[in-house]
Amino acid sequence: MGEKFVDNFKVLIANRGEIAVRIIRAVKMLGFQTVAVYSSADKDSLHVAMADESVQIGPSNVADSYLNQKAILAAAEITHADAIHPGYGFLSENPNFAKQVEEMGIVFIGPTSEVIAQMGDKEKARQFMSEAGVPIVSGSDSFFEDVDIGFKQAKKIGYPVMLKSVAGGGGKGMRLVSNQDSFKSLFEVAQSEIMASVGDPRMYLEKFVSKPRHIEVQILGDGLGNAIVLGERDCTIQSHHQKVIEEAPSHLLDETTRKKMLAVSLNAVKRMAYRSAGTFEFLYQGPGKFYFMEMNTRIQVEHAISEEVSGIDIVSAQIQLASGRNINDISIGSKNNYAIEARVSALSAGTITGLHLPTGLGIRIETAVYQGYKVPPYYDAMIVKIIATGMTRHETLKRLQIAIEETVILGVDTNLDLLMRIIIHPDYMSDKNKTDIDWLDFQMKE
Amino acid sequence: MGEKFVDNFKVLIANRGEIAVRIIRAVKMLGFQTVAVYSSADKDSLHVAMADESVQIGPSNVADSYLNQKAILAAAEITHADAIHPGYGFLSENPNFAKQVEEMGIVFIGPTSEVIAQMGDKEKARQFMSEAGVPIVSGSDSFFEDVDIGFKQAKKIGYPVMLKSVAGGGGKGMRLVSNQDSFKSLFEVAQSEIMASVGDPRMYLEKFVSKPRHIEVQILGDGLGNAIVLGERDCTIQSHHQKVIEEAPSHLLDETTRKKMLAVSLNAVKRMAYRSAGTFEFLYQGPGKFYFMEMNTRIQVEHAISEEVSGIDIVSAQIQLASGRNINDISIGSKNNYAIEARVSALSAGTITGLHLPTGLGIRIETAVYQGYKVPPYYDAMIVKIIATGMTRHETLKRLQIAIEETVILGVDTNLDLLMRIIIHPDYMSDKNKTDIDWLDFQMKE
Repeated sequence: MGEKFVDNFKVLIANRGEIAVRIIRAVKMLGFQTVAVYSSADKDSLHVAMADESVQIGPSNVADSYLNQKAILAAAEITHADAIHPGYGFLSENPNFAKQVEEMGIVFIGPTSEVIAQMGDKEKARQFMSEAGVPIVSGSDSFFEDVDIGFKQAKKIGYPVMLKSVAGGGGKGMRLVSNQDSFKSLFEVAQSEIMASVGDPRMYLEKFVSKPRHIEVQILGDGLGNAIVLGERDCTIQSHHQKVIEEAPSHLLDETTRKKMLAVSLNAVKRMAYRSAGTFEFLYQGPGKFYFMEMNTRIQVEHAISEEVSGIDIVSAQIQLASGRNINDISIGSKNNYAIEARVSALSAGTITGLHLPTGLGIRIETAVYQGYKVPPYYDAMIVKIIATGMTRHETLKRLQIAIEETVILGVDTNLDLLMRIIIHPDYMSDKNKTDIDWLDFQMKE
Repeated sequence: MGEKFVDNFKVLIANRGEIAVRIIRAVKMLGFQTVAVYSSADKDSLHVAMADESVQIGPSNVADSYLNQKAILAAAEITHADAIHPGYGFLSENPNFAKQVEEMGIVFIGPTSEVIAQMGDKEKARQFMSEAGVPIVSGSDSFFEDVDIGFKQAKKIGYPVMLKSVAGGGGKGMRLVSNQDSFKSLFEVAQSEIMASVGDPRMYLEKFVSKPRHIEVQILGDGLGNAIVLGERDCTIQSHHQKVIEEAPSHLLDETTRKKMLAVSLNAVKRMAYRSAGTFEFLYQGPGKFYFMEMNTRIQVEHAISEEVSGIDIVSAQIQLASGRNINDISIGSKNNYAIEARVSALSAGTITGLHLPTGLGIRIETAVYQGYKVPPYYDAMIVKIIATGMTRHETLKRLQIAIEETVILGVDTNLDLLMRIIIHPDYMSDKNKTDIDWLDFQMKE
């Protein structure tokens, strides 16, 4: 291992749920120690049971527990953690948190706080990508808080425009504005939404890209200017901007655009000497037409499908790269042709009174729930990821279908029915996949 | 698909437990219909819940249900099944059953009844293999029922000898005789043991091979003289002749012997124009020294590790080959470098009151149990197979270790502790693996 690794190297996982379990396994595979942190609502959680040590960091509410930087840093201090893995969500893209971790002399398993800050600032990110040759959709020249400035810029770009908040994510503070009559009212709604949740009033505009697919590129860099691309993921099936089904590779992305998309991503990553796992999110409209949306400087929910098709354990790679390992030292294992992930969500809180998860050839499960587990109402609704692999998209879909049929979750409502309806829908199943990012919300549900 | 497949092709699975579930999934992947059969004790079994149709074939005792040929054939008739998959154990190597299936015009998913009969007759099997150039251990020229004939033959072969019963399996009717003084008494014990269980008094002798490893070769043939070898499995870790841990490939088999072992197996399979999946079991004593024991003409418990390293879905291949498909039409998917299986057994009957099975990257589970399931006392004790895959033996073992640590099974006693003790034991873990087929019974437990 790299020079930062010592015997009894200890990693604190600043997260919960399936990603905490996933990270704990990766740390154990490397032979290191694990520290879990948890809110009072999570005391009976699997990540707590699996870790070597655990520290309660606060009450059930997120602000005082998983977003509680002081408590998490104190937990790292008292357990003598050598590194912190932030997972996804929570503090994973908070440059201030990463900076404090760095200043404590603890390894932050992710990029540097500077890079997180740069990519988290959408203006800077767009500018960097534009200079690096990554196609970006035309948009406002700068952020604004004032509705009248926005109104002028929207006119310049031309309707329809997508109004977005700088601090947003997962659709928050985002509105499609189709003409100037509705601009001002939608601006008020979007801005107050993001103010209420994050307190940042800055907004910006992008030319609306009609009926696109969401395609993203997974990369890994070692912070020394070396990087690799692990292919793309197609995350077009979304409900209210939340991904529901993801697949790798994208069977509809034409080969020329794929090559270009991967090449510009790789180039940009090398240019910023990026360290750790990262994702370039693009909108894709057809041959040659793709536009950078944002770069996520963390592990993503859907990383597993890239692992399955690239043969690389991305979470393990993050830990190794954080230690100063070179990208060429990351081992590459068995690759599947195709992988599809379905996100199973609990639509209600409550106790899981019956649970049977699918198993067998070509099925991988990521979860932190068990029969008897109480799904708390405070956190992300996703409780199980079902990942199917296969030789073809058709085979993989068939396997996922059988797996979803086998799944039994009692005691809480779930989206299992919806998942099945999606994957057997002709629009989705067909080789000429007719979906776009609005398909689930607007076409399928009709 | 081959010419025997029609729309709504229907496969009856003449088995229970994890292998029935495994077969049902493979049939569904091919888009066919499934029929489960079950004993009264198995009415709440997963294989019954998963199949499209199910037929109760008798009471809990095996003789009147899963060995009840008439009831199973009647079930096939009333459900209009086009094919029968026998799984392993039960009727899977019963030539009489296979013959009846053939005569009913139903596809038997396995080799022809003739081949089953030939390989099930140890004398004929030895003779065939010897002629085909497969090394066999020296032994008695023919079967015998009389102790005095055995005594003379043992003298000729030279002590120590292994006394075996023709109808035996899993160690039944088998005794190691180290010198002539104990021959007669051990003969009586072994013969009465097999008489009580199968009613066949025929015995034979083999030169005792000291401290061997158990290495077996997985093959697939199409019945047209074409065949492929899917590598070997090392099944040396056995308790009372029952396999406990299996791995693929065998890290201790020297390359020259491996090539020879695979080549002679392939040659023999082609020579008999074998159809379906089959296994050549060998004892291996070191470079150049390997001896054929028997050929199993069915799917084996440990087939999954060969699937993981060969990229071939063996159960699906069996179904396709039974239909008349050519071996070259069997698709080959993603291959792992290494796979290790641990067989989790229930050491007591009873209700599983708590169950948490491991998940995640590189972990495959095969099981038919769930929380609340009543483990019946009538059948095989194996309830879960944990299959780990990885890039190296070391990585795969580490992953298996974490998986076993994560596993929780409450309500019945299990061998989970034993499994863990084995896989972390220096004799087993070491690259210079010091185990042999008696290690678990005699060395480790000391």
